[in-house]
Amino acid sequence: MGCHFKQRRKAVFSETDLAGIVHFASFFPYMEDCEHSFYRSLGHSVTNMVDNDGVNIGWPRVNVSCEYLKSIRFEDEFEIQLIVSDVTDKTIKYEFNFFDDDNRLLAKGSVVVVCVKFIESGMKSTTIPDSIRNSITNATEQS
Amino acid sequence: MGCHFKQRRKAVFSETDLAGIVHFASFFPYMEDCEHSFYRSLGHSVTNMVDNDGVNIGWPRVNVSCEYLKSIRFEDEFEIQLIVSDVTDKTIKYEFNFFDDDNRLLAKGSVVVVCVKFIESGMKSTTIPDSIRNSITNATEQS
Amino acid sequence: MGCHFKQRRKAVFSETDLAGIVHFASFFPYMEDCEHSFYRSLGHSVTNMVDNDGVNIGWPRVNVSCEYLKSIRFEDEFEIQLIVSDVTDKTIKYEFNFFDDDNRLLAKGSVVVVCVKFIESGMKSTTIPDSIRNSITNATEQS
Amino acid sequence: MGCHFKQRRKAVFSETDLAGIVHFASFFPYMEDCEHSFYRSLGHSVTNMVDNDGVNIGWPRVNVSCEYLKSIRFEDEFEIQLIVSDVTDKTIKYEFNFFDDDNRLLAKGSVVVVCVKFIESGMKSTTIPDSIRNSITNATEQS
Repeated sequence: MGCHFKQRRKAVFSETDLAGIVHFASFFPYMEDCEHSFYRSLGHSVTNMVDNDGVNIGWPRVNVSCEYLKSIRFEDEFEIQLIVSDVTDKTIKYEFNFFDDDNRLLAKGSVVVVCVKFIESGMKSTTIPDSIRNSITNATEQS
Repeated sequence: MGCHFKQRRKAVFSETDLAGIVHFASFFPYMEDCEHSFYRSLGHSVTNMVDNDGVNIGWPRVNVSCEYLKSIRFEDEFEIQLIVSDVTDKTIKYEFNFFDDDNRLLAKGSVVVVCVKFIESGMKSTTIPDSIRNSITNATEQS
Repeated sequence: MGCHFKQRRKAVFSETDLAGIVHFASFFPYMEDCEHSFYRSLGHSVTNMVDNDGVNIGWPRVNVSCEYLKSIRFEDEFEIQLIVSDVTDKTIKYEFNFFDDDNRLLAKGSVVVVCVKFIESGMKSTTIPDSIRNSITNATEQS
Repeated sequence: MGCHFKQRRKAVFSETDLAGIVHFASFFPYMEDCEHSFYRSLGHSVTNMVDNDGVNIGWPRVNVSCEYLKSIRFEDEFEIQLIVSDVTDKTIKYEFNFFDDDNRLLAKGSVVVVCVKFIESGMKSTTIPDSIRNSITNATEQS
């Protein structure tokens, strides 16, 4: 299966640690930024979405994981490939594959998010709005 | 002049960079956490403050600086000493001195914050509330 | 089963994001610092370990995960409980449970690390040194 | 005076804090990445430089500052302009101006770095190598 979105990056100094490689926690902001770039490519911004009733929604993470195969070093260039691997009524699962320029797999990650609406007492899970669901369906069917 | 608050820390792995030392940008969260601990020691929380009219206030940074004298390494213990060096109608200036356990100065920083109230269109600078000013005056006169 | 090490924390400002809660990636430095504190409690430092032949060793992460149940907010206090859930010839699996002061589970994480020795060409997986294995066995059998 | 290098960025989620804006400490990795991109534009990498005798050199920060004029929010695009404002025998001073797309100044920063060579006992300040000095002179005279 092809991926649904690609993003290139170059590792920066502040993402490295004393072991001389990109710190393992830095892969999660990488995945998050790839997800947000994917939404921008569809004309959406995650901080500006509303449900079918016009109420603001958000996407807190339910669970995340990352498997590390090869280190990434300062100024290494790599590509992150995003796959929308599962969409339920209220959740989306993304998978991310990190490749270097020789097409070697560096890392594999996953992120499950739940759609919530913001209500007075906090937030509550809610059905993914049609506009978002349709955008994602279009993006994933085209690939 | 003595300092007005002290905090001990130990450098953690994720704060280091590939040069094997604490990344220079990490000193700013260090200073910020020391400032917030200082407020907690006075019975205040920076996210729960109101002005004389009951409107929520905040403390955005106006300018900050840091001078680096000696490196801090993973698991090094050090002490941060906070000094309230200037209080005007709407601003507070903090200075921070970082010492190792042999009392050698590792770094010196400064942070100037402005008191703002949150209004519909964003935020607006405002007079420091009496309750906060009095707490700070008491803390700095005692030292 | 009881846990093998506990660490208390308080969430700081720089760990939060615009959703007003601790950013999901911050849970990984939390787990790493808990692991390093566990080693310090056993008299070890992860940057100062050698194998049975005196060669420097390290512990890169193989895979990590986190499940998020409740948000952590600025200045929230919480406890991280570390469990050594599996030790093989070359790898250690840690599980981490995050609890608030009402004993509610906030998050659950896992980290698998592999023991490597540093050689000229990079690093190579190696048998966990006896001194480390014995320390861990003692710590986990006592609990 | 014109600037000597420009870099565009977009603020990402993990750089924001609970005040809904980019955390003030994030401006320092921004400046550092701009400096490293400037060097790449000159054909240099800061982790791969040697002095006139072939010894590895580095550029620890001596002091840094930032003045904040307007907030940067998630997904805001901005430009960082780097100016080499002073070069001495062993130090370089950079100034950075952050602009939004309406050419409004968002922030102003400065970074002074010292050239050091890595020796057995740590590091020692040293004369900036001719190759680096010449590159910088060429870049700044052209602008």
